[in-house]
Amino acid sequence: MDQQTFFTSEPSPSDIETVSCKVRDFVQHHKAQSRPVVLVTSGGTTVPLEKHTVRFVDNFSAGTRGSASAEYFISKGYAVVFLHRAYSLEPYSRNYTHTTHCFLDFLSVEESETNGSRIFVSPQNKDELINILKRYEKVQESRMLLKVDFTTVTAYLHYLKACTMELNSIGSGGVCYLAAAVSDFFVPASKMEVHKIQSRDGPFQLEMQQVPKMLYSLVKEWCPRAFVVSFKLETDPALLVPKAKRALENYGHQLVVGNILNTRKYTITLVTPGDQGGVCVVALTEEEIEAKDVEIEEKLIASICKMHSEFAS
Amino acid sequence: MDQQTFFTSEPSPSDIETVSCKVRDFVQHHKAQSRPVVLVTSGGTTVPLEKHTVRFVDNFSAGTRGSASAEYFISKGYAVVFLHRAYSLEPYSRNYTHTTHCFLDFLSVEESETNGSRIFVSPQNKDELINILKRYEKVQESRMLLKVDFTTVTAYLHYLKACTMELNSIGSGGVCYLAAAVSDFFVPASKMEVHKIQSRDGPFQLEMQQVPKMLYSLVKEWCPRAFVVSFKLETDPALLVPKAKRALENYGHQLVVGNILNTRKYTITLVTPGDQGGVCVVALTEEEIEAKDVEIEEKLIASICKMHSEFAS
Repeated sequence: MDQQTFFTSEPSPSDIETVSCKVRDFVQHHKAQSRPVVLVTSGGTTVPLEKHTVRFVDNFSAGTRGSASAEYFISKGYAVVFLHRAYSLEPYSRNYTHTTHCFLDFLSVEESETNGSRIFVSPQNKDELINILKRYEKVQESRMLLKVDFTTVTAYLHYLKACTMELNSIGSGGVCYLAAAVSDFFVPASKMEVHKIQSRDGPFQLEMQQVPKMLYSLVKEWCPRAFVVSFKLETDPALLVPKAKRALENYGHQLVVGNILNTRKYTITLVTPGDQGGVCVVALTEEEIEAKDVEIEEKLIASICKMHSEFAS
Repeated sequence: MDQQTFFTSEPSPSDIETVSCKVRDFVQHHKAQSRPVVLVTSGGTTVPLEKHTVRFVDNFSAGTRGSASAEYFISKGYAVVFLHRAYSLEPYSRNYTHTTHCFLDFLSVEESETNGSRIFVSPQNKDELINILKRYEKVQESRMLLKVDFTTVTAYLHYLKACTMELNSIGSGGVCYLAAAVSDFFVPASKMEVHKIQSRDGPFQLEMQQVPKMLYSLVKEWCPRAFVVSFKLETDPALLVPKAKRALENYGHQLVVGNILNTRKYTITLVTPGDQGGVCVVALTEEEIEAKDVEIEEKLIASICKMHSEFAS
């Protein structure tokens, strides 16, 4: 299936016009203040196997990298469109959700005769929470973050097209940071079972089609002047750099962020185009890993912002 | 694959002994106080498609029913073992996670010269949060809730066997409330790809084997004296009661809770065994749906506790 057929035959989300409109306003608002805008995609897409969905294929991603990266882009002065999987990790709240330590554990109730019931934050959690709340409130006030959520791969791709086409109006001031884990395969709407697939008839056979590659259109048509960053996640280290190089040749974009599944929290390989084209590694030091006081996304986003400002100037 | 082969060939979680031991202590503690114990399973299981997992098949479930039911069981005086998908909804915190309204939105920071920074809860959220916090603290103090988490269907089944075998020591005072959405299919460890399945070689073909049916062993061997409640989720209403009846005949347990995907928040069909065997409906009234002040799980758990106390006496 080619890209054009995909967008015609796979239904778009009902709020696609509203989302386009919000992104347009957001980009214009920040363009007027000469502020760069980044589209951060985050979390995994699903592929429903039934129309009334009981089962779906999912891509492994809690949104750790995307939600952390969005925070660091904001701290570098970028306005962020955060296109993320519904209920995946989000900037700021990411520290208090998806943990096995429940956020109710650091709140407590104190009764007093004069003031009624009051809620207290336990002292060891208070400073960190105050710090995050202050940053969160400031971001709300200055409109630095616009959230859009998706669940299925089809919805994701429709939103991606709409968001990047709006981002195009800011030219080289725009960055596409495609950290979402997008399914390579899907079940076309025309071939989807209506009801739950029954389990009595022996083994489960499934055939999915390839999702058309969108990166070429994104780079050439949707936002041709933006700085485009794609991601590769591999489990086999030998495949990473060759696949990144091939992607840069095929799609003509600016940067591939390469990750190996088991080491992605400590080391990242950045691959740029060209013959003398660079392979550079962003990594945490042993001391930083030990102390757990630096996130690798802080270093990664610093590198990318530097590359982007050279690209845009 | 039969059940015995499954437990031998599919590796068990590394902490299975620790979990068994904790559940044993928990059951003994409450048995000594003549308190009934319910095992609530909640959330969906995953089926990894690769050993270094990038992709997996998931079953649709946020854990809404299981987490709400656990709270109502506790309010009816039951101690709860909550066997749930990691990061799915949990009792008490369920009201503040997985919502598009971020919990940071109802906290704010106020600076004062004398007291430094303080965190405030916005007035419209305060009463509800205080109420939930009080219940949560009481449950912690009285050890009414033991949480065990799983991700894959294999881990789930190993934990299920271990938990129900421990529950057996409380005899008819035990309830198994199997609300988790468990995959019917899996990829055996021996057939799993090691690395990420590559996307360049045409359509994605997948064959999964049936997960052996565990309910028969659970009812006959693991906890034969417990009150066992299984769940059916269907999208086609015509299939629901016949499939529930067939399950009761095949497995010999006490109750099937039947749900239709699109109406499960308002209406539930309870199916019990026997010729004159009952089909009864638990539903919210139109006023309750409108007012959003009653959860259907409150009515469901009230019915089940009544059935269990008749069963146990």
